[in-house]
Amino acid sequence: MPQDLSAFDAATTVRRAEGGGLVTELDPGWDVGGGILNGGYLLAVAARAAVLESPHPHAVGLSASYLRAPAAGAATLAVVPGPAGRTVAHALVTLADAEGPAVTVQATTATLGTDAPEWSEPMPVVPSVEDCFSVAEQRHLAQPDVPIPGLTQRLDMRLDPSTAGWAVGKPSGEPVIRAWMRFADGRDPDPLALVLFADALPPTGFALGRIGWAPTVQLQVLVRALPAPGWCFVEARASEIAGGWGDEDYRIWDSAGRLVAQSRQLARAPR
Amino acid sequence: MPQDLSAFDAATTVRRAEGGGLVTELDPGWDVGGGILNGGYLLAVAARAAVLESPHPHAVGLSASYLRAPAAGAATLAVVPGPAGRTVAHALVTLADAEGPAVTVQATTATLGTDAPEWSEPMPVVPSVEDCFSVAEQRHLAQPDVPIPGLTQRLDMRLDPSTAGWAVGKPSGEPVIRAWMRFADGRDPDPLALVLFADALPPTGFALGRIGWAPTVQLQVLVRALPAPGWCFVEARASEIAGGWGDEDYRIWDSAGRLVAQSRQLARAPR
Repeated sequence: MPQDLSAFDAATTVRRAEGGGLVTELDPGWDVGGGILNGGYLLAVAARAAVLESPHPHAVGLSASYLRAPAAGAATLAVVPGPAGRTVAHALVTLADAEGPAVTVQATTATLGTDAPEWSEPMPVVPSVEDCFSVAEQRHLAQPDVPIPGLTQRLDMRLDPSTAGWAVGKPSGEPVIRAWMRFADGRDPDPLALVLFADALPPTGFALGRIGWAPTVQLQVLVRALPAPGWCFVEARASEIAGGWGDEDYRIWDSAGRLVAQSRQLARAPR
Repeated sequence: MPQDLSAFDAATTVRRAEGGGLVTELDPGWDVGGGILNGGYLLAVAARAAVLESPHPHAVGLSASYLRAPAAGAATLAVVPGPAGRTVAHALVTLADAEGPAVTVQATTATLGTDAPEWSEPMPVVPSVEDCFSVAEQRHLAQPDVPIPGLTQRLDMRLDPSTAGWAVGKPSGEPVIRAWMRFADGRDPDPLALVLFADALPPTGFALGRIGWAPTVQLQVLVRALPAPGWCFVEARASEIAGGWGDEDYRIWDSAGRLVAQSRQLARAPR
């Protein structure tokens, strides 16, 4: 492994095994607590496999069903190609560990251009990075006895103070969390990083005072543009929490203020 | 076919053929123009197949890749069941016509309850149905020489006037379309109807003055609650249009003002 490979690139490496199948080593360092690997991390690994088998370089649409939480360690990626044209290619990717399939992903690949948008939702007015709080520190404040999850260490996330009160027993009461985000090791964002960012914030239930895991059931990520270098700004918002279910709706802007990704997931709500 | 079957229930009927496979007859009457069947209609047929093979009665999460436009007429639905538990079951559904696979769908089924929501985004302040304009009439105004699509006849859709200017050469300039919606034959909404409604408005490009078809590439629909009888209010909004791509983000409220469904799609933008 080259010395200069970023932590994210190393952890999402997909290679061709003897016999032609794709394999990876799921890295235990990208967990959300309790050894559970982050859903965005798993989706980024699947996206890398989809791109490897596609004529197009970018995963622009990914829809994943999370069947069960896979273990860290060796995993396989079965890619069934669908129709592939000049603009778009489709594939179905199944990520499996020794116990069987864990995540199935419908992947649409294409080539993201550098055209200026005809329409683009502007970034909200947000505090500067310097005026924001580290998510790792806030998690430690909220749960001093719980180790800080690997994901929260590998990403540098700085919470908008208006959405950070949950850490000090003053939840905002609105299921919205906003933060600046980048890799802790300085790697710049790219379309694959946006797939990770699109599921990387703490569950918005935290902002209602419910500090607990919210396992993802279905997640769609759309990557809309090549992100500029530097920090991204990420907003997650729940529209409805009912009957043990919640959604998380993400929008991501790059350092130039361009909307570069969107995601929506259906998750089990923490009780 | 029973006399009292609604047009939608008839058009989405899925039955078991000799040999055990599921089959349907895609109804040419649910097109968006030019004989192209509506993506939400196709997704509702796939959802019906998923529910038939599931221990749970409602499709709560559906993610579809649109590979090619299928022809009206005989089609098959192959359902590959995934893990099924007490709360959630997963399946992969492939809708195919004589030419091969047309739509692949990851389906999550569960049981929607009647719990009041802990959090729910309220319906925006909107004009009454009486103060809104028929989408069928607006389409006729915008394109007098083009027959009104079947979908637009089978649904009764009444446009919020602030998003209806495209029909009279005065597009609002903001890619948002809002309308009250119900079946023209009076059938009340249910979770399956919401799957149709979640892709039934004209493309939001219309509101930018671009009257053209915007083929769906990937669509995710989340059904969040059992809708109350009567009209639903549906809002579609594009967040970014760039490089020949656009998104459509839907929120649907029922007649009681409860958020009952959300969808997001990646589509090709009309030129």
